[in-house]
Amino acid sequence: MTLPQRVRLVEMAPRDGLQNEPGEVVATDIKIELIERLARAGLTHIEATSFVSPKWVPQMGDAREVMAGLQRAPNVTYSALTPNLKGLENALEARVSQVAVFAAASEAFSKKNINCSIDESLARFEPMMARAFDAKVRVRGYVSCVLGCPYEGEITPRQVARVAKALYEMGCFEVSLGDTIGVGTPLAARRMIDEVARVVPVEHLAAHFHDTYGMAIANLFAVLEQGVAVIDASTGGLGGCPYAKGASGNVAMEDVLYLLEGLGIETGVDLAAVVETGEWISGKLGRESASRVARAMSAR
Amino acid sequence: MTLPQRVRLVEMAPRDGLQNEPGEVVATDIKIELIERLARAGLTHIEATSFVSPKWVPQMGDAREVMAGLQRAPNVTYSALTPNLKGLENALEARVSQVAVFAAASEAFSKKNINCSIDESLARFEPMMARAFDAKVRVRGYVSCVLGCPYEGEITPRQVARVAKALYEMGCFEVSLGDTIGVGTPLAARRMIDEVARVVPVEHLAAHFHDTYGMAIANLFAVLEQGVAVIDASTGGLGGCPYAKGASGNVAMEDVLYLLEGLGIETGVDLAAVVETGEWISGKLGRESASRVARAMSAR
Repeated sequence: MTLPQRVRLVEMAPRDGLQNEPGEVVATDIKIELIERLARAGLTHIEATSFVSPKWVPQMGDAREVMAGLQRAPNVTYSALTPNLKGLENALEARVSQVAVFAAASEAFSKKNINCSIDESLARFEPMMARAFDAKVRVRGYVSCVLGCPYEGEITPRQVARVAKALYEMGCFEVSLGDTIGVGTPLAARRMIDEVARVVPVEHLAAHFHDTYGMAIANLFAVLEQGVAVIDASTGGLGGCPYAKGASGNVAMEDVLYLLEGLGIETGVDLAAVVETGEWISGKLGRESASRVARAMSAR
Repeated sequence: MTLPQRVRLVEMAPRDGLQNEPGEVVATDIKIELIERLARAGLTHIEATSFVSPKWVPQMGDAREVMAGLQRAPNVTYSALTPNLKGLENALEARVSQVAVFAAASEAFSKKNINCSIDESLARFEPMMARAFDAKVRVRGYVSCVLGCPYEGEITPRQVARVAKALYEMGCFEVSLGDTIGVGTPLAARRMIDEVARVVPVEHLAAHFHDTYGMAIANLFAVLEQGVAVIDASTGGLGGCPYAKGASGNVAMEDVLYLLEGLGIETGVDLAAVVETGEWISGKLGRESASRVARAMSAR
């Protein structure tokens, strides 16, 4: 087991972070400033928004305006989540650089969250893949509940591998494996990656871990040793208040950067600039940052 | 690298936790109830107090009363920190089951924290070891700043090994290695353990990691894989408010238990009972628990 020399970080705060934000809809210009600050800090892949019905996710109702208002940096990928063909068309029209589709490893979660079975969700992606291929836009695949489901409990590595394989084989260039409820521990994470890496090459896998139970950094260290070299994280730990029920608790980008720097792994990202951005957006949302590194560095 | 089958947990909340508590001195009966609850939860080693001058540490001014008031469980070790011979005599008089001495791996920290050089502190322990040996009381040794010092910055594994070896050779049955400012990352922790384990057998080492930068659980996972099988932790993450300067930020016992359960490692401790105790003492101190596991479990 050897650590990768370099890790690519995928920033989740503007989409996975803000979409769970309760209360008032965050102003479009704040979203745009957040994305631009993150790009200036060195993040080269930012999931900027979601082209989803505003009836479902009011926070993402300004997806078009966010993409239009953004001053784009030349070397940065601005991706968007697209749950269906209509969302994909809107995303393409808004000139996103990449799109993402979303399936679950848990049958119960799929039914409750996206109102169809896993196989139905995969079938729905087929025409989307074709359309994205035509438009020369790459598609990232997410699998949720890879280390546990709020309804089913345990999820086997085999269940995860099946969905990951399907997404990869239909053309997703990368499959991001989400511990949606943050219940995983390091050996469970390793067993899951072991199984998935048999059907999807490890260089096409990303770890998307939530920190709800404080395990995300340990789980990331465990899978880095397996060669996983793409990590999703959210500046300020945005993505649900850790005090509330149903907290999503994305792992904080600051904490991931601190880990990677300590391990001697390159990222090209400026930790101090990310801390500053995390403190700024946390202030705008009227809350304390969920990042321990941000708190510790701000207290110094 | 194989994980231990069983880990012994050493509870820090009543001593290392409360000694840093700002504001009012916590009432003796609350301290006693805390210790008794922790023992009922299955913790077999509880550092109960510190026999130190109340001028230095007002929170520990009732060490004698705590030990006298305690209803002791037969299988539980109640230890106390003893900085000098006078403290040791008082601790023995109070019938503690074990004592602990405290040195630093950093020369600057030693001077600022205990007002003498590392060698002077070690020399001071010699008559204490003899006295404890006479009284048939075992002595635990702490080394602080093992992964970094607030004054010197980097601390080499060799510096840590030198102090750990000295404590072990003068008769400490166990040496607890403290990342006092919580700056360590997993490979640094492993390099440190590698070096120390050359001079002190790994079964006589304990990991005492702080979570100031959110790395403690990852660091513990890393050293568990090296065979470290004794872990210090503090219920509720007691030991300095994470928001304040100089936060000590002991890793939360709840988070450690969750990690160990996930890894299939036995502890004999009841996580639910510890969570309940952590919520109770956090309430008494008028603050939110610093344990993510406690927050997540309480929100369910």
